[in-house]
Amino acid sequence: MIRLVLIGIGTGHPDHLTLQGVRALQQADLVLIPLKGAEKEDLAHLRLAMLDRHRPGGAVATVDLPRRAADGDYLEAVDRWHDAIASAWSSAVSKALPQGGTVALLVWGDPSLYDSSLRIAARLDWPAQVIPGITAVQALCAAHAIPLNALGAPVQITTGRRLRDHGWPEGCDRVIVMLDGACAFADLQPEGVRIWWGAYLAMPEQLLEAGPLAEAAPRIIAARAAARAAHGWIMDCYLLAKDA
Amino acid sequence: MIRLVLIGIGTGHPDHLTLQGVRALQQADLVLIPLKGAEKEDLAHLRLAMLDRHRPGGAVATVDLPRRAADGDYLEAVDRWHDAIASAWSSAVSKALPQGGTVALLVWGDPSLYDSSLRIAARLDWPAQVIPGITAVQALCAAHAIPLNALGAPVQITTGRRLRDHGWPEGCDRVIVMLDGACAFADLQPEGVRIWWGAYLAMPEQLLEAGPLAEAAPRIIAARAAARAAHGWIMDCYLLAKDA
Repeated sequence: MIRLVLIGIGTGHPDHLTLQGVRALQQADLVLIPLKGAEKEDLAHLRLAMLDRHRPGGAVATVDLPRRAADGDYLEAVDRWHDAIASAWSSAVSKALPQGGTVALLVWGDPSLYDSSLRIAARLDWPAQVIPGITAVQALCAAHAIPLNALGAPVQITTGRRLRDHGWPEGCDRVIVMLDGACAFADLQPEGVRIWWGAYLAMPEQLLEAGPLAEAAPRIIAARAAARAAHGWIMDCYLLAKDA
Repeated sequence: MIRLVLIGIGTGHPDHLTLQGVRALQQADLVLIPLKGAEKEDLAHLRLAMLDRHRPGGAVATVDLPRRAADGDYLEAVDRWHDAIASAWSSAVSKALPQGGTVALLVWGDPSLYDSSLRIAARLDWPAQVIPGITAVQALCAAHAIPLNALGAPVQITTGRRLRDHGWPEGCDRVIVMLDGACAFADLQPEGVRIWWGAYLAMPEQLLEAGPLAEAAPRIIAARAAARAAHGWIMDCYLLAKDA
């Protein structure tokens, strides 16, 4: 019998880990580390440093993740990809823990937000416990020292794809945009809109930009392209707000 | 010169604190503990237990918070109330730290989300650093072991007041509702809607309910009333989702 513990590890600062996360790491029988290819080597390194610090010598299994098909329907491709990841997890865990036990996965950010571990675990019928972690949303607001919401007002969390395809969400003056590889903010009407952007949040490489969208957008596009070229990968997100 | 550190401490589990939060607590010259009256004694106790554990014997000042006027315009009343809190902070800190230094405030959840510390700090021109913490949103999803968002889809975070006054937000099938003292979910058309509710999230008193809204709503209303009567206070939130 396999039990899964999904541990939210925050956005890149090793001290984003909670005390609850440290304990769960120490109590797991095995930590499963998915390897996603060279462009995410920095992130794998960060996970391994956490293990060295909090469970030195503890059992670890790595698993090479399959790649998502780039063609065809997006949601269908993701669905097939999750099936393939579930198989990869299952093989790695049966080999490392033939008698069963508790397997920990270190999840970037928090397991609830734009992460697929819970959906993948559901395919395997492994009961999953979740240890919450700091999301990029909180890390962004913390880095800029700004509130996420206006007083008593709502906030929408959405994706770059949604913003590009559907425009600014109705009835909501503040929007957090994640998973935007194509700078969807640049296609908005910029009048009366401010942006707070951050990349590599809470990491030594952290980049921040903020200001009226018309002025800040070109700076962000340039900073993003330069950083992506320099590091080989980027993770970023931003808050958009209409002026009150 | 006063510097402020706002430390997100999570929703009630003492181990929601991050390693970064522990360090910030230990490095502060003073911790300011606002006292909000008897109904929140349990919460003050939790904060004091964190201090005993992570900075035993460290300097602490308590401050009695003024109460918000219950009459008149809501946003205006909040505005005046924040002015009064800023004065109370300022008096307590000048007395305890006449030479200046770093003052830590332990913020329930995360300082970015439905918290006023940043707005109050701005009134005092104290530079504020933010240490992100686990929000009730993540604690709710963790407790139910569910994702916040559907695949690639948006989520709106809103308040009970907004849901009551404006109904279900346009263009968004998932809604997190916070600060709802009046069970606004009970006024929605329940067909095709599911709810995941939690109170005292991650505390020993934690309560969870979930199910189709029509069935779960009466259970939640009853559980909420009983718990509020038993404890003298309640903090809860919930996720609503339209069936796909």
